Amino acid sequence: MELTFKAVDNVPLIQKGDDLADMIYRLADLHDNDIVVIASTIVSKSLGLTFYLSDVTPGEEAQRIARLNHKEPAFVQAVLDESLEVFVETPFMLVRNKNRHICINAGIDGSNVGGDRLLKLPENPDKHAANIGEKLEKLTGKKISVIITDTNGRAFKEGQTNVAIGLYKIKALRTWIGEKDLFGYVLEISEEAVVDEIAGAANLIMGEGANGYPVVIARGLNLYAPETAGITEFYRQEKDDVIVQGLLEIKNKGRN
Amino acid sequence: MELTFKAVDNVPLIQKGDDLADMIYRLADLHDNDIVVIASTIVSKSLGLTFYLSDVTPGEEAQRIARLNHKEPAFVQAVLDESLEVFVETPFMLVRNKNRHICINAGIDGSNVGGDRLLKLPENPDKHAANIGEKLEKLTGKKISVIITDTNGRAFKEGQTNVAIGLYKIKALRTWIGEKDLFGYVLEISEEAVVDEIAGAANLIMGEGANGYPVVIARGLNLYAPETAGITEFYRQEKDDVIVQGLLEIKNKGRN
Repeated sequence: MELTFKAVDNVPLIQKGDDLADMIYRLADLHDNDIVVIASTIVSKSLGLTFYLSDVTPGEEAQRIARLNHKEPAFVQAVLDESLEVFVETPFMLVRNKNRHICINAGIDGSNVGGDRLLKLPENPDKHAANIGEKLEKLTGKKISVIITDTNGRAFKEGQTNVAIGLYKIKALRTWIGEKDLFGYVLEISEEAVVDEIAGAANLIMGEGANGYPVVIARGLNLYAPETAGITEFYRQEKDDVIVQGLLEIKNKGRN
Repeated sequence: MELTFKAVDNVPLIQKGDDLADMIYRLADLHDNDIVVIASTIVSKSLGLTFYLSDVTPGEEAQRIARLNHKEPAFVQAVLDESLEVFVETPFMLVRNKNRHICINAGIDGSNVGGDRLLKLPENPDKHAANIGEKLEKLTGKKISVIITDTNGRAFKEGQTNVAIGLYKIKALRTWIGEKDLFGYVLEISEEAVVDEIAGAANLIMGEGANGYPVVIARGLNLYAPETAGITEFYRQEKDDVIVQGLLEIKNKGRN
Protein backbone atom coordinates (compact mmCIF):
# COMPACT_ATOMS: atom_id res chain seq x y z
CA MET A 1 0.00 0.00 0.00
CA GLU A 2 1.42 3.33 -1.06
CA LEU A 3 0.37 6.92 -0.56
CA THR A 4 1.86 9.89 -2.41
CA PHE A 5 1.80 13.62 -1.79
CA LYS A 6 2.75 15.69 -4.81
CA ALA A 7 3.13 19.45 -4.94
CA VAL A 8 1.44 21.28 -7.81
CA ASP A 9 4.17 23.22 -9.60
CA ASN A 10 3.97 26.74 -11.05
CA VAL A 11 1.11 28.02 -8.90
CA PRO A 12 1.17 31.80 -9.56
CA LEU A 13 0.80 34.50 -6.90
CA ILE A 14 -2.93 34.52 -6.29
CA GLN A 15 -4.93 37.75 -6.67
CA LYS A 16 -8.47 38.67 -5.69
CA GLY A 17 -10.91 37.14 -8.15
CA ASP A 18 -8.62 34.32 -9.32
CA ASP A 19 -10.44 31.06 -10.03
CA LEU A 20 -8.60 28.42 -7.96
CA ALA A 21 -10.48 25.44 -9.41
CA ASP A 22 -9.60 26.51 -12.93
CA MET A 23 -5.96 27.15 -11.96
CA ILE A 24 -5.63 23.71 -10.29
CA TYR A 25 -7.34 22.00 -13.24
CA ARG A 26 -4.81 23.53 -15.64
CA LEU A 27 -1.72 22.70 -13.51
CA ALA A 28 -2.51 19.26 -12.05
CA ASP A 29 -3.33 15.90 -13.60
CA LEU A 30 -6.13 14.71 -11.33
CA HIS A 31 -7.26 11.10 -10.88
CA ASP A 32 -10.34 9.55 -9.27
CA ASN A 33 -10.12 9.64 -5.44
CA ASP A 34 -7.44 12.32 -5.41
CA ILE A 35 -7.54 14.65 -2.42
CA VAL A 36 -6.63 18.23 -3.31
CA VAL A 37 -5.07 19.95 -0.28
CA ILE A 38 -5.16 23.76 -0.49
CA ALA A 39 -3.51 26.26 1.88
CA SER A 40 -6.14 28.67 3.20
CA THR A 41 -3.85 31.62 2.37
CA ILE A 42 -4.55 31.30 -1.35
CA VAL A 43 -8.27 30.82 -0.72
CA SER A 44 -8.26 34.04 1.32
CA LYS A 45 -6.26 35.86 -1.34
CA SER A 46 -8.62 34.77 -4.11
CA LEU A 47 -11.50 36.09 -1.97
CA GLY A 48 -9.70 39.40 -1.36
CA LEU A 49 -9.60 38.94 2.44
CA THR A 50 -6.59 41.21 2.92
CA PHE A 51 -6.89 44.31 5.07
CA TYR A 52 -4.78 47.12 6.54
CA LEU A 53 -4.39 47.62 10.28
CA SER A 54 -4.79 51.35 9.71
CA ASP A 55 -8.41 50.66 8.71
CA VAL A 56 -9.21 48.97 12.05
CA THR A 57 -10.36 51.11 15.03
CA PRO A 58 -9.52 49.44 18.35
CA GLY A 59 -12.10 49.49 21.14
CA GLU A 60 -11.46 49.44 24.90
CA GLU A 61 -11.23 45.66 25.17
CA ALA A 62 -8.66 45.55 22.38
CA GLN A 63 -6.62 48.32 24.02
CA ARG A 64 -6.65 46.46 27.36
CA ILE A 65 -5.43 43.18 25.81
CA ALA A 66 -2.90 45.00 23.60
CA ARG A 67 -1.30 46.52 26.73
CA LEU A 68 -1.00 43.06 28.32
CA ASN A 69 0.59 41.54 25.20
CA HIS A 70 2.60 44.52 23.87
CA LYS A 71 0.74 44.22 20.58
CA GLU A 72 -0.84 46.83 18.33
CA PRO A 73 -4.40 47.55 19.56
CA ALA A 74 -5.69 47.46 15.97
CA PHE A 75 -4.28 43.95 15.54
CA VAL A 76 -5.99 42.80 18.73
CA GLN A 77 -9.26 44.36 17.55
CA ALA A 78 -8.93 42.47 14.25
CA VAL A 79 -8.49 39.23 16.19
CA LEU A 80 -11.53 40.01 18.38
CA ASP A 81 -13.59 40.82 15.27
CA GLU A 82 -12.84 37.34 13.89
CA SER A 83 -13.52 35.50 17.19
CA LEU A 84 -16.57 33.96 18.83
CA GLU A 85 -14.81 33.41 22.18
CA VAL A 86 -11.41 34.14 23.73
CA PHE A 87 -9.90 31.29 25.79
CA VAL A 88 -6.47 32.80 26.47
CA GLU A 89 -5.88 36.58 26.44
CA THR A 90 -2.24 36.71 27.45
CA PRO A 91 0.67 36.23 26.68
CA PHE A 92 -0.95 35.27 23.35
CA MET A 93 -4.55 35.12 22.15
CA LEU A 94 -6.09 31.67 21.76
CA VAL A 95 -9.62 32.01 20.42
CA ARG A 96 -12.49 30.14 18.82
CA ASN A 97 -12.84 31.86 15.47
CA LYS A 98 -16.07 32.48 13.58
CA ASN A 99 -15.82 29.02 12.03
CA ARG A 100 -15.52 27.40 15.52
CA HIS A 101 -11.87 26.55 14.79
CA ILE A 102 -9.68 27.10 17.90
CA CYS A 103 -6.42 28.84 16.97
CA ILE A 104 -3.92 31.60 17.80
CA ASN A 105 -4.88 35.15 16.70
CA ALA A 106 -8.01 33.85 14.92
CA GLY A 107 -5.73 32.79 12.07
CA ILE A 108 -4.85 36.36 11.02
CA ASP A 109 -1.52 36.21 9.23
CA GLY A 110 1.00 38.66 7.80
CA SER A 111 3.27 36.18 5.99
CA ASN A 112 3.35 35.99 2.20
CA VAL A 113 0.79 38.79 1.77
CA GLY A 114 3.07 41.69 0.84
CA GLY A 115 3.32 45.25 2.19
CA ASP A 116 1.57 46.10 5.48
CA ARG A 117 -1.42 44.00 4.65
CA LEU A 118 -2.78 41.17 6.77
CA LEU A 119 -4.90 38.22 5.73
CA LYS A 120 -8.05 36.79 7.36
CA LEU A 121 -9.25 33.20 7.16
CA PRO A 122 -12.26 32.65 4.91
CA GLU A 123 -15.64 32.39 6.60
CA ASN A 124 -17.25 28.96 6.17
CA PRO A 125 -14.26 27.14 4.63
CA ASP A 126 -16.47 24.10 3.94
CA LYS A 127 -18.41 26.23 1.48
CA HIS A 128 -15.24 27.35 -0.31
CA ALA A 129 -13.93 23.75 -0.36
CA ALA A 130 -17.23 22.74 -1.95
CA ASN A 131 -17.09 25.54 -4.55
CA ILE A 132 -13.61 24.45 -5.62
CA GLY A 133 -14.35 20.71 -5.39
CA GLU A 134 -17.62 20.87 -7.34
CA LYS A 135 -15.97 22.81 -10.13
CA LEU A 136 -12.97 20.44 -10.21
CA GLU A 137 -15.27 17.42 -10.39
CA LYS A 138 -17.17 19.03 -13.27
CA LEU A 139 -13.99 19.99 -15.16
CA THR A 140 -12.25 16.63 -14.70
CA GLY A 141 -15.19 14.22 -14.57
CA LYS A 142 -13.38 12.56 -11.62
CA LYS A 143 -14.23 11.97 -7.97
CA ILE A 144 -12.26 14.66 -6.15
CA SER A 145 -12.09 15.52 -2.43
CA VAL A 146 -10.82 18.89 -1.16
CA ILE A 147 -9.22 19.87 2.16
CA ILE A 148 -8.51 23.53 3.00
CA THR A 149 -5.76 23.85 5.63
CA ASP A 150 -4.31 26.33 8.09
CA THR A 151 -1.15 26.29 10.19
CA ASN A 152 -1.84 25.72 13.87
CA GLY A 153 -0.03 25.17 17.17
CA ARG A 154 -0.65 22.13 19.39
CA ALA A 155 -1.22 21.40 23.07
CA PHE A 156 1.78 20.31 25.18
CA LYS A 157 4.33 20.50 22.36
CA GLU A 158 6.28 23.18 20.53
CA GLY A 159 5.94 23.51 16.78
CA GLN A 160 3.12 24.08 14.35
CA THR A 161 1.48 21.83 11.83
CA ASN A 162 -1.22 22.09 9.19
CA VAL A 163 -4.75 21.16 10.14
CA ALA A 164 -7.93 20.84 8.10
CA ILE A 165 -10.37 23.77 8.37
CA GLY A 166 -12.65 23.05 5.40
CA LEU A 167 -13.75 19.84 3.69
CA TYR A 168 -15.44 18.65 0.50
CA LYS A 169 -16.43 15.00 -0.02
CA ILE A 170 -14.20 13.59 2.70
CA LYS A 171 -15.14 12.81 6.29
CA ALA A 172 -13.12 14.35 9.13
CA LEU A 173 -12.90 11.05 11.03
CA ARG A 174 -12.38 7.45 9.92
CA THR A 175 -13.98 5.13 12.42
CA TRP A 176 -12.41 1.83 13.50
CA ILE A 177 -15.05 1.20 16.17
CA GLY A 178 -16.39 -2.32 15.83
CA GLU A 179 -13.46 -3.45 13.66
CA LYS A 180 -11.60 -6.50 14.91
CA ASP A 181 -7.99 -6.39 16.00
CA LEU A 182 -5.23 -8.83 15.04
CA PHE A 183 -6.55 -11.40 17.52
CA GLY A 184 -10.23 -11.03 16.64
CA TYR A 185 -11.18 -8.79 19.60
CA VAL A 186 -13.45 -5.87 18.75
CA LEU A 187 -11.67 -2.52 19.05
CA GLU A 188 -13.35 -0.52 21.79
CA ILE A 189 -13.02 2.94 20.39
CA SER A 190 -10.92 4.45 17.69
CA GLU A 191 -11.69 7.35 15.43
CA GLU A 192 -8.83 8.50 13.28
CA ALA A 193 -8.52 12.19 12.43
CA VAL A 194 -7.64 11.43 8.81
CA VAL A 195 -8.14 14.94 7.42
CA ASP A 196 -5.65 16.43 9.90
CA GLU A 197 -3.19 13.65 9.07
CA ILE A 198 -3.50 14.49 5.38
CA ALA A 199 -3.22 18.25 6.07
CA GLY A 200 -0.09 17.70 8.19
CA ALA A 201 1.58 15.52 5.57
CA ALA A 202 0.85 18.09 2.85
CA ASN A 203 2.59 20.69 5.03
CA LEU A 204 5.81 18.67 4.74
CA ILE A 205 6.05 19.80 1.13
CA MET A 206 4.03 23.05 1.23
CA GLY A 207 6.78 24.95 3.03
CA GLU A 208 6.37 28.27 4.81
CA GLY A 209 8.83 30.49 2.99
CA ALA A 210 9.35 31.83 -0.52
CA ASN A 211 9.48 28.39 -2.12
CA GLY A 212 6.03 27.45 -0.93
CA TYR A 213 3.69 25.09 -2.73
CA PRO A 214 0.14 25.99 -1.65
CA VAL A 215 -1.54 23.08 -3.46
CA VAL A 216 -0.68 19.42 -2.84
CA ILE A 217 -2.37 16.32 -4.29
CA ALA A 218 -2.74 13.28 -2.00
CA ARG A 219 -3.16 10.03 -3.91
CA GLY A 220 -3.57 6.40 -2.81
CA LEU A 221 -6.28 6.71 -0.15
CA ASN A 222 -9.83 5.54 -0.51
CA LEU A 223 -11.63 8.25 1.47
CA TYR A 224 -13.98 9.78 -1.10
CA ALA A 225 -17.35 10.35 0.62
CA PRO A 226 -20.28 11.49 -1.54
CA GLU A 227 -21.86 13.25 1.43
CA THR A 228 -19.51 15.33 3.55
CA ALA A 229 -20.50 16.07 7.13
CA GLY A 230 -18.18 19.11 7.17
CA ILE A 231 -15.33 20.18 9.36
CA THR A 232 -17.28 21.01 12.52
CA GLU A 233 -18.00 17.28 12.90
CA PHE A 234 -14.79 16.86 14.89
CA TYR A 235 -14.80 20.08 16.92
CA ARG A 236 -15.38 18.95 20.50
CA GLN A 237 -18.35 20.38 22.39
CA GLU A 238 -17.27 22.91 25.02
CA LYS A 239 -19.03 21.03 27.84
CA ASP A 240 -17.02 17.88 26.96
CA ASP A 241 -13.70 19.69 26.69
CA VAL A 242 -11.71 19.67 29.93
CA ILE A 243 -8.91 21.69 28.31
CA VAL A 244 -11.26 24.54 27.38
CA GLN A 245 -12.71 24.45 30.90
CA GLY A 246 -9.21 24.72 32.37
CA LEU A 247 -8.33 27.67 30.17
CA LEU A 248 -11.53 29.50 31.10
CA GLU A 249 -10.85 28.78 34.78
CA ILE A 250 -7.47 30.51 34.54
CA LYS A 251 -8.86 33.41 32.50
CA ASN A 252 -11.69 34.07 34.97
CA LYS A 253 -9.33 33.83 37.92
CA GLY A 254 -7.08 36.47 36.33
CA ARG A 255 -10.00 38.86 36.23
CA ASN A 256 -11.10 38.51 39.85
CA MET B 1 8.23 17.65 -5.28
CA GLU B 2 6.85 14.29 -4.25
CA LEU B 3 6.65 12.40 -1.01
CA THR B 4 5.66 8.75 -0.66
CA PHE B 5 4.58 6.61 2.29
CA LYS B 6 4.81 2.89 1.65
CA ALA B 7 3.71 0.14 4.01
CA VAL B 8 6.14 -2.72 4.59
CA ASP B 9 4.30 -5.92 3.65
CA ASN B 10 4.40 -9.28 5.40
CA VAL B 11 5.47 -8.04 8.85
CA PRO B 12 4.89 -11.09 11.06
CA LEU B 13 3.27 -11.05 14.51
CA ILE B 14 6.11 -9.79 16.71
CA GLN B 15 7.24 -11.81 19.72
CA LYS B 16 9.53 -10.98 22.63
CA GLY B 17 13.13 -11.07 21.49
CA ASP B 18 12.43 -10.48 17.79
CA ASP B 19 15.03 -8.29 16.07
CA LEU B 20 13.05 -5.50 14.42
CA ALA B 21 16.01 -4.02 12.51
CA ASP B 22 16.78 -7.39 10.97
CA MET B 23 13.10 -7.97 10.13
CA ILE B 24 12.75 -4.53 8.45
CA TYR B 25 16.04 -5.01 6.57
CA ARG B 26 14.78 -8.28 5.10
CA LEU B 27 11.31 -6.95 4.14
CA ALA B 28 12.02 -3.39 2.91
CA ASP B 29 14.22 -1.98 0.18
CA LEU B 30 15.71 1.04 1.93
CA HIS B 31 17.24 4.09 0.24
CA ASP B 32 19.37 6.97 1.53
CA ASN B 33 17.29 9.49 3.51
CA ASP B 34 14.42 7.08 4.04
CA ILE B 35 12.50 7.56 7.28
CA VAL B 36 11.37 4.29 8.85
CA VAL B 37 8.17 4.84 10.85
CA ILE B 38 7.49 2.10 13.41
CA ALA B 39 4.38 1.65 15.58
CA SER B 40 5.41 1.52 19.24
CA THR B 41 3.23 -1.58 19.72
CA ILE B 42 5.71 -3.79 17.88
CA VAL B 43 8.65 -2.20 19.71
CA SER B 44 6.91 -3.00 23.02
CA LYS B 45 6.15 -6.54 21.89
CA SER B 46 9.74 -7.17 20.85
CA LEU B 47 10.80 -5.96 24.31
CA GLY B 48 8.25 -8.19 26.02
CA LEU B 49 6.39 -5.29 27.67
CA THR B 50 3.14 -7.20 27.99
CA PHE B 51 1.63 -7.75 31.42
CA TYR B 52 -1.50 -9.14 33.11
CA LEU B 53 -3.81 -6.99 35.21
CA SER B 54 -4.02 -9.83 37.71
CA ASP B 55 -0.33 -9.22 38.47
CA VAL B 56 -0.94 -5.58 39.47
CA THR B 57 -1.92 -4.71 43.07
CA PRO B 58 -3.90 -1.47 43.23
CA GLY B 59 -3.13 1.02 46.01
CA GLU B 60 -5.53 3.49 47.64
CA GLU B 61 -5.00 6.23 45.05
CA ALA B 62 -5.76 3.79 42.24
CA GLN B 63 -8.90 2.58 44.02
CA ARG B 64 -10.10 6.16 44.50
CA ILE B 65 -9.65 7.07 40.81
CA ALA B 66 -11.06 3.73 39.67
CA ARG B 67 -14.29 4.50 41.55
CA LEU B 68 -14.55 7.90 39.85
CA ASN B 69 -14.03 6.43 36.36
CA HIS B 70 -15.71 3.02 36.75
CA LYS B 71 -12.46 1.35 35.71
CA GLU B 72 -10.60 -1.64 37.13
CA PRO B 73 -8.38 -0.50 40.06
CA ALA B 74 -5.50 -2.63 38.74
CA PHE B 75 -5.69 -0.85 35.38
CA VAL B 76 -5.58 2.56 37.11
CA GLN B 77 -2.61 1.38 39.18
CA ALA B 78 -0.80 0.32 36.00
CA VAL B 79 -1.41 3.79 34.54
CA LEU B 80 -0.13 5.45 37.73
CA ASP B 81 2.96 3.21 37.67
CA GLU B 82 3.80 4.48 34.18
CA SER B 83 3.15 8.17 34.98
CA LEU B 84 5.23 11.05 36.29
CA GLU B 85 2.22 13.34 36.79
CA VAL B 86 -1.56 13.15 36.43
CA PHE B 87 -3.20 16.20 34.80
CA VAL B 88 -6.74 14.87 34.51
CA GLU B 89 -8.10 12.11 36.79
CA THR B 90 -11.68 11.91 35.61
CA PRO B 91 -13.63 11.06 33.45
CA PHE B 92 -10.40 9.78 31.82
CA MET B 93 -6.74 9.85 32.88
CA LEU B 94 -4.49 12.29 31.05
CA VAL B 95 -0.93 11.93 32.32
CA ARG B 96 2.67 12.75 31.63
CA ASN B 97 4.23 9.34 31.21
CA LYS B 98 7.74 8.32 32.24
CA ASN B 99 9.10 9.57 28.91
CA ARG B 100 7.47 13.02 29.49
CA HIS B 101 4.97 12.28 26.72
CA ILE B 102 1.46 13.56 27.65
CA CYS B 103 -1.20 11.00 26.75
CA ILE B 104 -4.32 9.13 27.84
CA ASN B 105 -3.79 6.12 30.20
CA ALA B 106 0.02 6.49 29.91
CA GLY B 107 -0.25 4.74 26.54
CA ILE B 108 -1.26 1.38 28.02
CA ASP B 109 -3.14 -0.52 25.34
CA GLY B 110 -5.10 -3.75 25.02
CA SER B 111 -5.53 -3.83 21.23
CA ASN B 112 -3.69 -6.35 19.08
CA VAL B 113 -1.96 -7.98 22.06
CA GLY B 114 -4.07 -11.12 22.42
CA GLY B 115 -5.71 -12.67 25.47
CA ASP B 116 -6.08 -10.61 28.66
CA ARG B 117 -2.68 -9.07 28.28
CA LEU B 118 -1.95 -5.35 28.11
CA LEU B 119 0.99 -3.58 26.57
CA LYS B 120 3.14 -0.75 27.99
CA LEU B 121 5.04 1.83 25.99
CA PRO B 122 8.82 1.33 25.93
CA GLU B 123 10.86 3.45 28.31
CA ASN B 124 13.19 5.86 26.52
CA PRO B 125 11.85 5.35 22.97
CA ASP B 126 14.74 7.48 21.59
CA LYS B 127 17.11 4.75 22.72
CA HIS B 128 15.10 2.04 20.99
CA ALA B 129 14.81 4.17 17.82
CA ALA B 130 18.60 4.50 17.92
CA ASN B 131 19.12 0.76 18.42
CA ILE B 132 16.98 -0.02 15.38
CA GLY B 133 18.35 2.88 13.28
CA GLU B 134 22.02 2.15 13.97
CA LYS B 135 21.57 -1.47 13.03
CA LEU B 136 19.61 -0.59 9.87
CA GLU B 137 22.32 1.90 8.81
CA LYS B 138 24.96 -0.77 9.36
CA LEU B 139 23.03 -3.46 7.47
CA THR B 140 22.09 -1.23 4.52
CA GLY B 141 25.03 1.19 4.38
CA LYS B 142 22.42 3.95 3.88
CA LYS B 143 21.46 7.07 5.82
CA ILE B 144 18.29 6.04 7.65
CA SER B 145 16.13 7.96 10.13
CA VAL B 146 13.69 6.26 12.50
CA ILE B 147 10.47 7.52 14.13
CA ILE B 148 8.64 5.43 16.75
CA THR B 149 4.96 6.41 16.99
CA ASP B 150 1.98 6.09 19.29
CA THR B 151 -1.71 6.87 18.82
CA ASN B 152 -2.82 9.96 20.70
CA GLY B 153 -5.85 12.22 21.15
CA ARG B 154 -5.73 15.97 20.54
CA ALA B 155 -6.92 19.14 22.24
CA PHE B 156 -10.23 20.68 21.13
CA LYS B 157 -11.02 18.04 18.51
CA GLU B 158 -12.37 14.50 18.42
CA GLY B 159 -10.29 11.76 16.85
CA GLN B 160 -6.86 10.30 17.35
CA THR B 161 -3.74 10.46 15.28
CA ASN B 162 -0.22 9.06 15.41
CA VAL B 163 2.50 11.15 17.02
CA ALA B 164 6.25 10.67 17.29
CA ILE B 165 7.49 9.41 20.68
CA GLY B 166 11.04 8.35 19.76
CA LEU B 167 13.54 9.62 17.17
CA TYR B 168 16.78 8.61 15.49
CA LYS B 169 18.68 10.97 13.18
CA ILE B 170 15.78 13.33 12.52
CA LYS B 171 14.98 16.57 14.34
CA ALA B 172 11.54 17.01 15.91
CA LEU B 173 11.15 20.54 14.51
CA ARG B 174 12.08 22.12 11.18
CA THR B 175 12.69 25.81 11.68
CA TRP B 176 11.58 28.47 9.21
CA ILE B 177 12.61 31.35 11.49
CA GLY B 178 14.73 33.84 9.55
CA GLU B 179 13.58 32.44 6.19
CA LYS B 180 12.09 35.02 3.83
CA ASP B 181 8.50 34.86 2.69
CA LEU B 182 7.19 35.25 -0.87
CA PHE B 183 7.65 39.03 -0.68
CA GLY B 184 11.09 39.01 0.95
CA TYR B 185 9.93 39.72 4.52
CA VAL B 186 11.60 37.64 7.22
CA LEU B 187 9.21 35.15 8.81
CA GLU B 188 8.82 36.03 12.47
CA ILE B 189 8.45 32.60 13.95
CA SER B 190 7.68 29.24 12.51
CA GLU B 191 8.81 25.84 13.68
CA GLU B 192 7.19 22.93 11.93
CA ALA B 193 6.53 19.75 13.88
CA VAL B 194 7.74 17.55 11.01
CA VAL B 195 8.05 14.29 12.95
CA ASP B 196 4.43 14.43 14.06
CA GLU B 197 3.39 15.22 10.49
CA ILE B 198 5.28 12.14 9.28
CA ALA B 199 3.86 9.99 12.11
CA GLY B 200 0.32 11.14 11.29
CA ALA B 201 0.69 10.44 7.58
CA ALA B 202 2.07 6.96 8.29
CA ASN B 203 -1.04 6.30 10.36
CA LEU B 204 -3.16 6.76 7.22
CA ILE B 205 -1.82 3.43 6.00
CA MET B 206 -0.90 1.72 9.28
CA GLY B 207 -4.54 1.06 10.21
CA GLU B 208 -5.80 0.10 13.64
CA GLY B 209 -7.44 -3.23 12.99
CA ALA B 210 -6.44 -6.69 11.83
CA ASN B 211 -5.01 -5.48 8.54
CA GLY B 212 -2.49 -3.25 10.22
CA TYR B 213 0.89 -2.33 8.78
CA PRO B 214 3.13 -1.43 11.74
CA VAL B 215 6.09 -0.30 9.60
CA VAL B 216 5.88 2.46 6.96
CA ILE B 217 8.71 3.96 4.89
CA ALA B 218 8.55 7.72 4.18
CA ARG B 219 10.60 8.74 1.13
CA GLY B 220 11.23 12.07 -0.58
CA LEU B 221 12.09 14.30 2.37
CA ASN B 222 15.52 15.66 3.12
CA LEU B 223 15.44 15.57 6.92
CA TYR B 224 18.34 13.25 7.79
CA ALA B 225 20.20 14.81 10.74
CA PRO B 226 23.48 13.20 11.85
CA GLU B 227 22.93 14.39 15.42
CA THR B 228 19.44 13.93 16.78
CA ALA B 229 18.32 16.11 19.66
CA GLY B 230 15.70 13.54 20.65
CA ILE B 231 11.97 13.67 21.16
CA THR B 232 11.89 15.73 24.36
CA GLU B 233 13.13 18.73 22.33
CA PHE B 234 9.55 19.65 21.50
CA TYR B 235 7.83 18.85 24.79
CA ARG B 236 6.79 22.23 26.19
CA GLN B 237 8.04 23.24 29.64
CA GLU B 238 5.26 23.10 32.23
CA LYS B 239 5.77 26.74 33.28
CA ASP B 240 5.22 27.83 29.64
CA ASP B 241 2.17 25.67 29.12
CA VAL B 242 -1.10 27.46 29.84
CA ILE B 243 -3.11 24.32 28.99
CA VAL B 244 -1.31 22.26 31.64
CA GLN B 245 -1.82 25.07 34.15
CA GLY B 246 -5.54 25.15 33.38
CA LEU B 247 -5.86 21.38 33.82
CA LEU B 248 -4.04 21.49 37.17
CA GLU B 249 -6.28 24.39 38.28
CA ILE B 250 -9.38 22.26 37.66
CA LYS B 251 -7.86 19.18 39.27
CA ASN B 252 -6.86 21.06 42.43
CA LYS B 253 -10.24 22.75 42.64
CA GLY B 254 -11.95 19.35 42.52
CA ARG B 255 -10.00 18.27 45.58
CA ASN B 256 -10.83 21.27 47.78
